[in-house]
Amino acid sequence: MRYLLTMRFCGGKYHGWQVQQNAVTVQQTVQDALERVFGRRPDLTGCSRTDSGVHANMFCAHFDMDTDIPAERIPAALNAHLPEDIAVYGCRIVRPDFHARYSASGKGYVYKILSSPYRDPFLTGRAYHIKQHLDIEAMSAAAACFAGRHDFAAFCSAGSSVESTVREVFGAAVEQHGELIEFSVHADGFLYNMVRIMAGTLIDIGCMRLRPDSVGDIIASCERNRAGFTAPPHGLYLNRVYYDDNSF
Amino acid sequence: MRYLLTMRFCGGKYHGWQVQQNAVTVQQTVQDALERVFGRRPDLTGCSRTDSGVHANMFCAHFDMDTDIPAERIPAALNAHLPEDIAVYGCRIVRPDFHARYSASGKGYVYKILSSPYRDPFLTGRAYHIKQHLDIEAMSAAAACFAGRHDFAAFCSAGSSVESTVREVFGAAVEQHGELIEFSVHADGFLYNMVRIMAGTLIDIGCMRLRPDSVGDIIASCERNRAGFTAPPHGLYLNRVYYDDNSF
Repeated sequence: MRYLLTMRFCGGKYHGWQVQQNAVTVQQTVQDALERVFGRRPDLTGCSRTDSGVHANMFCAHFDMDTDIPAERIPAALNAHLPEDIAVYGCRIVRPDFHARYSASGKGYVYKILSSPYRDPFLTGRAYHIKQHLDIEAMSAAAACFAGRHDFAAFCSAGSSVESTVREVFGAAVEQHGELIEFSVHADGFLYNMVRIMAGTLIDIGCMRLRPDSVGDIIASCERNRAGFTAPPHGLYLNRVYYDDNSF
Repeated sequence: MRYLLTMRFCGGKYHGWQVQQNAVTVQQTVQDALERVFGRRPDLTGCSRTDSGVHANMFCAHFDMDTDIPAERIPAALNAHLPEDIAVYGCRIVRPDFHARYSASGKGYVYKILSSPYRDPFLTGRAYHIKQHLDIEAMSAAAACFAGRHDFAAFCSAGSSVESTVREVFGAAVEQHGELIEFSVHADGFLYNMVRIMAGTLIDIGCMRLRPDSVGDIIASCERNRAGFTAPPHGLYLNRVYYDDNSF
Protein backbone atom coordinates (compact mmCIF):
# COMPACT_ATOMS: atom_id res chain seq x y z
CA MET A 1 0.00 0.00 0.00
CA ARG A 2 1.13 3.55 -0.67
CA TYR A 3 0.67 6.05 2.17
CA LEU A 4 0.72 9.84 2.05
CA LEU A 5 1.92 11.65 5.16
CA THR A 6 1.27 15.32 5.90
CA MET A 7 3.56 16.97 8.40
CA ARG A 8 4.74 20.27 9.80
CA PHE A 9 8.30 21.04 10.76
CA CYS A 10 10.39 23.84 12.17
CA GLY A 11 13.43 23.55 9.92
CA GLY A 12 16.00 25.51 11.92
CA LYS A 13 18.01 22.49 13.01
CA TYR A 14 17.81 20.57 9.73
CA HIS A 15 19.86 20.63 6.57
CA GLY A 16 16.70 20.66 4.51
CA TRP A 17 14.50 17.74 3.54
CA GLN A 18 16.70 15.47 1.54
CA VAL A 19 19.08 12.89 3.02
CA GLN A 20 22.69 14.05 3.03
CA GLN A 21 25.90 12.59 4.30
CA ASN A 22 27.07 14.03 7.62
CA ALA A 23 24.04 16.29 8.13
CA VAL A 24 20.70 15.73 9.79
CA THR A 25 17.75 16.13 7.44
CA VAL A 26 13.99 15.95 7.91
CA GLN A 27 13.71 13.03 5.48
CA GLN A 28 16.08 10.78 7.41
CA THR A 29 14.56 11.80 10.75
CA VAL A 30 11.10 10.75 9.54
CA GLN A 31 12.55 7.58 8.01
CA ASP A 32 14.07 6.75 11.40
CA ALA A 33 10.59 7.08 12.95
CA LEU A 34 9.04 4.93 10.18
CA GLU A 35 11.64 2.25 10.86
CA ARG A 36 10.83 2.33 14.57
CA VAL A 37 7.11 1.97 13.93
CA PHE A 38 7.18 -0.59 11.09
CA GLY A 39 10.44 -2.46 11.72
CA ARG A 40 11.52 -1.73 8.13
CA ARG A 41 12.96 1.43 6.59
CA PRO A 42 10.92 2.49 3.56
CA ASP A 43 11.91 5.00 0.92
CA LEU A 44 10.21 8.30 1.68
CA THR A 45 9.56 10.65 -1.23
CA GLY A 46 8.91 14.30 -0.41
CA CYS A 47 6.87 16.90 -2.27
CA SER A 48 9.87 19.22 -2.59
CA ARG A 49 13.52 19.56 -1.67
CA THR A 50 13.36 22.31 0.92
CA ASP A 51 16.62 24.10 1.66
CA SER A 52 18.49 24.04 4.92
CA GLY A 53 16.61 26.04 7.56
CA VAL A 54 13.34 26.33 5.63
CA HIS A 55 10.14 25.59 7.56
CA ALA A 56 6.94 23.81 6.57
CA ASN A 57 3.41 24.28 7.81
CA MET A 58 2.42 21.54 5.36
CA PHE A 59 4.82 19.09 3.79
CA CYS A 60 3.74 15.88 2.06
CA ALA A 61 5.67 12.66 1.51
CA HIS A 62 4.73 9.15 0.35
CA PHE A 63 6.06 5.69 1.16
CA ASP A 64 5.07 2.09 0.46
CA MET A 65 4.42 -0.34 3.31
CA ASP A 66 2.54 -3.53 4.14
CA THR A 67 1.06 -3.05 7.57
CA ASP A 68 -2.02 -3.79 9.64
CA ILE A 69 -1.81 -0.44 11.44
CA PRO A 70 -4.82 1.66 10.39
CA ALA A 71 -3.76 4.82 8.52
CA GLU A 72 -5.45 7.09 11.07
CA ARG A 73 -3.24 5.68 13.83
CA ILE A 74 0.03 6.23 11.99
CA PRO A 75 0.52 9.96 12.79
CA ALA A 76 0.44 9.42 16.57
CA ALA A 77 2.68 6.33 16.25
CA LEU A 78 5.25 8.33 14.28
CA ASN A 79 5.07 11.41 16.51
CA ALA A 80 6.04 9.26 19.50
CA HIS A 81 9.39 8.66 17.74
CA LEU A 82 9.90 12.13 16.25
CA PRO A 83 11.61 15.15 17.84
CA GLU A 84 9.45 18.08 18.92
CA ASP A 85 10.25 20.16 15.83
CA ILE A 86 8.57 17.67 13.46
CA ALA A 87 4.92 16.60 13.72
CA VAL A 88 2.95 14.31 11.41
CA TYR A 89 -0.72 15.28 11.42
CA GLY A 90 -2.19 13.27 8.58
CA CYS A 91 -1.88 9.89 6.88
CA ARG A 92 -4.01 8.39 4.12
CA ILE A 93 -3.82 5.50 1.70
CA VAL A 94 -3.38 6.71 -1.88
CA ARG A 95 -3.26 5.14 -5.36
CA PRO A 96 -0.10 3.14 -6.12
CA ASP A 97 0.81 5.66 -8.84
CA PHE A 98 0.40 8.70 -6.57
CA HIS A 99 3.64 10.68 -6.19
CA ALA A 100 4.12 13.33 -3.49
CA ARG A 101 6.12 15.52 -5.87
CA TYR A 102 4.86 14.79 -9.39
CA SER A 103 1.16 14.53 -8.48
CA ALA A 104 1.21 17.99 -6.87
CA SER A 105 -0.74 20.51 -8.94
CA GLY A 106 0.66 23.47 -7.03
CA LYS A 107 2.21 24.79 -3.87
CA GLY A 108 1.90 27.82 -1.67
CA TYR A 109 4.73 29.48 0.22
CA VAL A 110 4.82 32.25 2.80
CA TYR A 111 7.87 34.41 3.48
CA LYS A 112 7.83 36.20 6.86
CA ILE A 113 9.66 39.49 7.46
CA LEU A 114 9.97 41.31 10.78
CA SER A 115 10.39 45.01 10.03
CA SER A 116 11.32 46.56 13.36
CA PRO A 117 14.18 48.44 15.02
CA TYR A 118 14.28 45.58 17.55
CA ARG A 119 14.29 41.80 17.26
CA ASP A 120 11.36 39.74 18.51
CA PRO A 121 12.44 36.80 20.72
CA PHE A 122 9.42 34.81 19.53
CA LEU A 123 10.39 35.19 15.87
CA THR A 124 14.09 34.34 16.15
CA GLY A 125 14.81 31.89 13.35
CA ARG A 126 11.20 32.15 12.18
CA ALA A 127 11.15 35.45 10.29
CA TYR A 128 13.78 37.54 8.52
CA HIS A 129 14.48 40.59 10.67
CA ILE A 130 15.29 43.87 8.97
CA LYS A 131 15.56 47.17 10.79
CA GLN A 132 14.48 49.37 7.89
CA HIS A 133 10.96 50.60 7.39
CA LEU A 134 9.33 48.97 4.36
CA ASP A 135 6.94 50.59 1.93
CA ILE A 136 4.19 47.97 2.08
CA GLU A 137 2.06 49.54 -0.63
CA ALA A 138 4.96 49.44 -3.07
CA MET A 139 5.67 45.81 -2.12
CA SER A 140 2.00 44.84 -2.55
CA ALA A 141 1.78 46.42 -5.98
CA ALA A 142 5.05 44.74 -7.00
CA ALA A 143 3.94 41.32 -5.68
CA ALA A 144 0.81 41.47 -7.83
CA CYS A 145 3.06 41.66 -10.92
CA PHE A 146 4.31 38.10 -10.26
CA ALA A 147 0.86 36.70 -11.08
CA GLY A 148 0.44 34.92 -14.38
CA ARG A 149 2.38 32.55 -16.64
CA HIS A 150 5.93 33.87 -17.04
CA ASP A 151 9.48 32.74 -17.64
CA PHE A 152 10.90 33.20 -14.13
CA ALA A 153 14.55 32.61 -15.13
CA ALA A 154 15.46 35.90 -13.39
CA PHE A 155 14.13 34.38 -10.15
CA CYS A 156 16.14 31.15 -10.27
CA SER A 157 19.51 30.56 -8.67
CA ALA A 158 22.36 29.19 -10.75
CA GLY A 159 22.93 25.45 -10.38
CA SER A 160 19.40 24.47 -11.24
CA SER A 161 19.01 21.99 -14.08
CA VAL A 162 15.31 22.33 -14.88
CA GLU A 163 14.26 22.10 -18.52
CA SER A 164 11.87 25.02 -18.42
CA THR A 165 11.85 28.11 -16.23
CA VAL A 166 8.23 28.94 -17.13
CA ARG A 167 5.83 28.74 -14.19
CA GLU A 168 2.30 29.92 -13.55
CA VAL A 169 1.85 32.03 -10.43
CA PHE A 170 -1.79 31.78 -9.34
CA GLY A 171 -1.51 34.61 -6.87
CA ALA A 172 0.95 36.66 -4.85
CA ALA A 173 0.26 39.17 -2.08
CA VAL A 174 1.89 41.10 0.76
CA GLU A 175 0.06 41.50 4.07
CA GLN A 176 1.06 43.45 7.15
CA HIS A 177 0.24 42.39 10.72
CA GLY A 178 1.88 45.02 12.90
CA GLU A 179 5.63 44.68 12.43
CA LEU A 180 5.27 41.29 10.74
CA ILE A 181 5.03 41.32 6.97
CA GLU A 182 4.00 38.20 5.09
CA PHE A 183 4.56 37.61 1.39
CA SER A 184 2.48 34.68 0.14
CA VAL A 185 2.68 33.15 -3.30
CA HIS A 186 0.92 30.21 -4.95
CA ALA A 187 2.07 28.62 -8.19
CA ASP A 188 1.98 25.40 -10.21
CA GLY A 189 5.64 24.96 -9.31
CA PHE A 190 8.70 26.85 -8.12
CA LEU A 191 12.26 27.17 -9.39
CA TYR A 192 15.33 26.83 -7.16
CA ASN A 193 15.29 29.69 -4.63
CA MET A 194 12.41 31.34 -6.51
CA VAL A 195 10.42 32.45 -3.45
CA ARG A 196 13.53 33.68 -1.63
CA ILE A 197 14.59 35.77 -4.66
CA MET A 198 11.03 37.10 -5.01
CA ALA A 199 11.08 38.02 -1.30
CA GLY A 200 14.51 39.68 -1.62
CA THR A 201 13.28 41.63 -4.64
CA LEU A 202 10.20 42.82 -2.75
CA ILE A 203 12.36 43.84 0.22
CA ASP A 204 14.65 45.77 -2.14
CA ILE A 205 11.54 47.51 -3.51
CA GLY A 206 10.23 48.15 0.02
CA CYS A 207 13.58 49.79 0.92
CA MET A 208 13.64 51.72 -2.39
CA ARG A 209 16.79 49.95 -3.58
CA LEU A 210 14.73 48.86 -6.60
CA ARG A 211 12.01 50.84 -8.41
CA PRO A 212 8.45 49.92 -7.38
CA ASP A 213 7.53 49.13 -11.00
CA SER A 214 10.61 47.04 -11.77
CA VAL A 215 9.16 43.51 -11.43
CA GLY A 216 7.81 43.38 -14.98
CA ASP A 217 11.17 44.46 -16.42
CA ILE A 218 13.06 41.99 -14.23
CA ILE A 219 10.84 39.11 -15.35
CA ALA A 220 11.20 40.15 -19.01
CA SER A 221 15.00 40.36 -18.71
CA CYS A 222 15.36 36.70 -17.62
CA GLU A 223 18.56 37.84 -15.91
CA ARG A 224 19.17 36.76 -12.34
CA ASN A 225 21.37 39.79 -11.62
CA ARG A 226 18.47 42.16 -12.34
CA ALA A 227 16.40 40.74 -9.46
CA GLY A 228 16.97 41.37 -5.77
CA PHE A 229 19.02 39.40 -3.27
CA THR A 230 18.18 35.88 -2.12
CA ALA A 231 16.38 36.38 1.20
CA PRO A 232 17.63 34.01 3.94
CA PRO A 233 15.96 30.61 4.42
CA HIS A 234 14.65 31.07 7.97
CA GLY A 235 11.81 33.36 6.83
CA LEU A 236 10.44 30.79 4.36
CA TYR A 237 7.56 28.40 4.98
CA LEU A 238 6.13 25.81 2.62
CA ASN A 239 2.53 26.49 3.51
CA ARG A 240 0.36 24.34 1.28
CA VAL A 241 0.66 21.51 -1.23
CA TYR A 242 -2.19 21.11 -3.70
CA TYR A 243 -3.27 17.80 -5.26
CA ASP A 244 -6.23 17.20 -7.55
CA ASP A 245 -8.81 14.98 -5.88
CA ASN A 246 -8.48 12.33 -8.59
CA SER A 247 -4.73 11.97 -7.94
CA PHE A 248 -5.41 10.30 -4.58
CA MET B 1 18.06 59.51 36.62
CA ARG B 2 15.53 56.68 36.78
CA TYR B 3 14.94 54.73 33.58
CA LEU B 4 12.05 52.41 32.67
CA LEU B 5 12.80 49.57 30.27
CA THR B 6 10.16 47.64 28.33
CA MET B 7 11.17 44.25 27.04
CA ARG B 8 9.92 40.98 25.61
CA PHE B 9 11.32 37.58 26.46
CA CYS B 10 10.84 33.94 25.64
CA GLY B 11 11.15 32.47 29.11
CA GLY B 12 11.78 28.80 28.29
CA LYS B 13 15.46 28.82 29.27
CA TYR B 14 15.12 31.04 32.35
CA HIS B 15 14.30 30.35 35.96
CA GLY B 16 11.88 33.24 36.01
CA TRP B 17 12.64 36.91 36.43
CA GLN B 18 14.25 37.22 39.82
CA VAL B 19 17.92 36.59 40.54
CA GLN B 20 18.58 33.20 42.10
CA GLN B 21 21.68 31.36 43.11
CA ASN B 22 22.80 28.69 40.65
CA ALA B 23 20.10 29.42 38.05
CA VAL B 24 19.97 31.79 35.11
CA THR B 25 17.22 34.39 35.37
CA VAL B 26 16.04 37.19 33.12
CA GLN B 27 16.87 39.84 35.73
CA GLN B 28 20.53 38.91 35.99
CA THR B 29 20.84 38.50 32.23
CA VAL B 30 19.56 42.05 31.70
CA GLN B 31 21.75 43.32 34.56
CA ASP B 32 24.75 41.75 32.80
CA ALA B 33 23.85 43.73 29.67
CA LEU B 34 23.39 46.95 31.70
CA GLU B 35 26.83 46.44 33.21
CA ARG B 36 28.35 45.98 29.77
CA VAL B 37 26.72 49.16 28.47
CA PHE B 38 27.22 51.44 31.51
CA GLY B 39 30.29 49.96 33.18
CA ARG B 40 28.35 49.70 36.44
CA ARG B 41 25.80 47.13 37.59
CA PRO B 42 22.58 48.84 38.70
CA ASP B 43 19.76 47.27 40.67
CA LEU B 44 16.96 46.35 38.30
CA THR B 45 13.43 46.22 39.68
CA GLY B 46 10.86 44.28 37.69
CA CYS B 47 7.10 44.72 37.44
CA SER B 48 6.45 41.16 38.62
CA ARG B 49 8.19 37.98 39.66
CA THR B 50 7.40 35.74 36.74
CA ASP B 51 7.82 32.00 37.32
CA SER B 52 10.33 29.74 35.67
CA GLY B 53 9.40 29.22 32.01
CA VAL B 54 6.83 32.01 31.80
CA HIS B 55 7.05 34.33 28.77
CA ALA B 56 6.52 38.08 28.41
CA ASN B 57 5.34 40.10 25.45
CA MET B 58 5.72 43.15 27.66
CA PHE B 59 7.73 43.28 30.85
CA CYS B 60 8.79 46.50 32.57
CA ALA B 61 11.72 47.17 34.89
CA HIS B 62 13.36 50.30 36.30
CA PHE B 63 16.94 51.19 37.26
CA ASP B 64 18.84 54.31 38.30
CA MET B 65 21.84 55.49 36.30
CA ASP B 66 23.88 58.60 35.53
CA THR B 67 24.69 58.47 31.85
CA ASP B 68 25.02 60.65 28.77
CA ILE B 69 23.54 57.98 26.52
CA PRO B 70 20.16 59.23 25.26
CA ALA B 71 17.28 57.04 26.47
CA GLU B 72 16.19 56.23 22.93
CA ARG B 73 19.60 54.69 22.18
CA ILE B 74 19.60 52.40 25.23
CA PRO B 75 17.42 49.57 23.80
CA ALA B 76 19.74 48.93 20.84
CA ALA B 77 22.81 49.21 23.10
CA LEU B 78 21.37 46.59 25.48
CA ASN B 79 20.15 44.26 22.74
CA ALA B 80 23.71 44.03 21.42
CA HIS B 81 24.63 42.36 24.73
CA LEU B 82 21.48 40.30 25.26
CA PRO B 83 20.76 36.74 24.04
CA GLU B 84 18.23 36.28 21.25
CA ASP B 85 15.42 35.27 23.59
CA ILE B 86 15.35 38.68 25.33
CA ALA B 87 14.76 41.99 23.53
CA VAL B 88 14.46 45.48 25.00
CA TYR B 89 12.21 47.64 22.83
CA GLY B 90 11.64 50.73 24.93
CA CYS B 91 13.43 53.02 27.38
CA ARG B 92 12.22 56.27 28.93
CA ILE B 93 13.21 58.55 31.77
CA VAL B 94 10.65 58.46 34.58
CA ARG B 95 10.08 60.27 37.89
CA PRO B 96 12.49 59.34 40.69
CA ASP B 97 9.60 57.86 42.67
CA PHE B 98 8.33 55.72 39.80
CA HIS B 99 8.36 52.00 40.64
CA ALA B 100 7.99 49.29 37.98
CA ARG B 101 5.96 47.12 40.35
CA TYR B 102 4.16 49.45 42.74
CA SER B 103 3.29 52.12 40.17
CA ALA B 104 1.55 49.56 37.94
CA SER B 105 -2.20 50.04 37.93
CA GLY B 106 -2.86 46.70 36.30
CA LYS B 107 -1.56 43.86 34.17
CA GLY B 108 -2.82 41.66 31.41
CA TYR B 109 -1.91 38.01 30.87
CA VAL B 110 -2.61 35.57 28.08
CA TYR B 111 -2.61 31.80 28.51
CA LYS B 112 -2.22 29.82 25.25
CA ILE B 113 -3.61 26.31 24.83
CA LEU B 114 -3.14 24.08 21.79
CA SER B 115 -6.11 21.71 21.62
CA SER B 116 -5.17 19.20 18.96
CA PRO B 117 -4.54 15.47 18.57
CA TYR B 118 -1.05 16.42 17.35
CA ARG B 119 1.63 18.76 18.62
CA ASP B 120 2.59 21.88 16.65
CA PRO B 121 6.38 22.23 16.22
CA PHE B 122 6.00 26.02 16.17
CA LEU B 123 4.22 26.06 19.54
CA THR B 124 6.56 23.74 21.45
CA GLY B 125 7.25 25.44 24.78
CA ARG B 126 4.95 28.30 23.79
CA ALA B 127 1.49 26.86 24.39
CA TYR B 128 0.11 24.11 26.62
CA HIS B 129 -0.77 21.15 24.42
CA ILE B 130 -3.76 19.03 25.31
CA LYS B 131 -5.18 16.34 23.06
CA GLN B 132 -8.76 16.61 24.27
CA HIS B 133 -11.42 18.64 22.53
CA LEU B 134 -12.43 21.66 24.61
CA ASP B 135 -15.91 23.14 24.91
CA ILE B 136 -15.01 26.74 24.06
CA GLU B 137 -18.48 28.12 24.73
CA ALA B 138 -18.46 26.69 28.25
CA MET B 139 -14.96 28.08 28.83
CA SER B 140 -15.98 31.54 27.55
CA ALA B 141 -19.01 31.68 29.79
CA ALA B 142 -16.93 30.55 32.77
CA ALA B 143 -14.15 33.08 32.05
CA ALA B 144 -16.68 35.92 32.14
CA CYS B 145 -17.47 34.96 35.76
CA PHE B 146 -13.94 36.00 36.82
CA ALA B 147 -14.77 39.66 36.09
CA GLY B 148 -15.30 41.97 39.04
CA ARG B 149 -13.88 42.53 42.50
CA HIS B 150 -13.58 39.21 44.31
CA ASP B 151 -11.58 37.40 46.93
CA PHE B 152 -9.52 35.11 44.70
CA ALA B 153 -8.07 32.99 47.56
CA ALA B 154 -9.26 29.86 45.73
CA PHE B 155 -6.99 30.87 42.83
CA CYS B 156 -3.82 31.37 44.85
CA SER B 157 -1.12 28.76 45.44
CA ALA B 158 0.04 28.03 48.95
CA GLY B 159 3.25 29.78 49.93
CA SER B 160 2.04 33.25 49.09
CA SER B 161 2.28 35.82 51.88
CA VAL B 162 0.06 38.59 50.54
CA GLU B 163 -2.08 40.50 53.02
CA SER B 164 -5.22 40.51 50.91
CA THR B 165 -6.40 38.05 48.29
CA VAL B 166 -8.99 40.49 46.94
CA ARG B 167 -8.33 41.59 43.35
CA GLU B 168 -10.35 43.34 40.69
CA VAL B 169 -10.51 41.56 37.34
CA PHE B 170 -11.28 44.13 34.65
CA GLY B 171 -12.02 41.52 32.02
CA ALA B 172 -11.47 37.88 31.09
CA ALA B 173 -12.21 36.13 27.80
CA VAL B 174 -11.52 32.98 25.82
CA GLU B 175 -10.87 33.20 22.08
CA GLN B 176 -10.33 30.43 19.56
CA HIS B 177 -8.03 30.71 16.53
CA GLY B 178 -8.21 27.30 14.88
CA GLU B 179 -6.61 24.82 17.28
CA LEU B 180 -5.09 27.60 19.40
CA ILE B 181 -7.18 28.79 22.34
CA GLU B 182 -6.22 31.97 24.19
CA PHE B 183 -7.45 32.90 27.63
CA SER B 184 -6.79 36.57 28.37
CA VAL B 185 -7.34 38.31 31.70
CA HIS B 186 -6.72 41.86 32.92
CA ALA B 187 -6.72 42.86 36.58
CA ASP B 188 -5.37 45.41 39.04
CA GLY B 189 -3.06 42.70 40.33
CA PHE B 190 -2.58 38.95 40.42
CA LEU B 191 -1.98 36.43 43.20
CA TYR B 192 0.69 33.75 43.08
CA ASN B 193 -0.16 31.34 40.20
CA MET B 194 -3.57 33.01 39.81
CA VAL B 195 -3.65 32.98 35.99
CA ARG B 196 -2.34 29.42 35.80
CA ILE B 197 -5.02 28.20 38.23
CA MET B 198 -7.68 30.14 36.31
CA ALA B 199 -6.44 28.53 33.08
CA GLY B 200 -6.42 25.07 34.65
CA THR B 201 -9.94 25.61 35.95
CA LEU B 202 -11.15 26.69 32.49
CA ILE B 203 -9.47 23.63 30.91
CA ASP B 204 -11.18 21.40 33.49
CA ILE B 205 -14.49 23.06 32.52
CA GLY B 206 -13.69 22.68 28.80
CA CYS B 207 -13.05 18.94 29.35
CA MET B 208 -16.17 18.63 31.55
CA ARG B 209 -14.16 17.66 34.62
CA LEU B 210 -15.76 20.69 36.33
CA ARG B 211 -19.30 22.02 35.84
CA PRO B 212 -19.58 24.96 33.41
CA ASP B 213 -21.24 27.12 36.09
CA SER B 214 -18.79 26.29 38.88
CA VAL B 215 -16.57 29.41 38.82
CA GLY B 216 -18.88 31.48 41.04
CA ASP B 217 -19.01 28.71 43.65
CA ILE B 218 -15.25 28.20 43.53
CA ILE B 219 -14.59 31.91 44.07
CA ALA B 220 -17.12 32.00 46.95
CA SER B 221 -15.52 28.95 48.61
CA CYS B 222 -12.08 30.62 48.91
CA GLU B 223 -10.70 27.04 48.85
CA ARG B 224 -7.80 26.27 46.55
CA ASN B 225 -8.77 22.60 46.29
CA ARG B 226 -12.12 23.53 44.73
CA ALA B 227 -10.47 25.15 41.73
CA GLY B 228 -8.79 23.32 38.85
CA PHE B 229 -5.16 22.30 38.40
CA THR B 230 -2.30 24.74 37.99
CA ALA B 231 -1.71 24.86 34.24
CA PRO B 232 1.99 24.63 33.30
CA PRO B 233 4.09 27.79 32.96
CA HIS B 234 5.03 27.51 29.30
CA GLY B 235 1.56 28.58 28.11
CA LEU B 236 1.63 31.82 30.13
CA TYR B 237 2.53 35.27 28.77
CA LEU B 238 2.65 38.54 30.66
CA ASN B 239 1.11 40.58 27.88
CA ARG B 240 0.67 44.10 29.16
CA VAL B 241 1.60 46.29 32.13
CA TYR B 242 -0.55 49.35 32.77
CA TYR B 243 0.66 52.60 34.38
CA ASP B 244 -1.30 55.78 34.85
CA ASP B 245 0.14 58.61 32.76
CA ASN B 246 0.85 60.71 35.85
CA SER B 247 3.04 57.96 37.36
CA PHE B 248 5.75 58.54 34.76
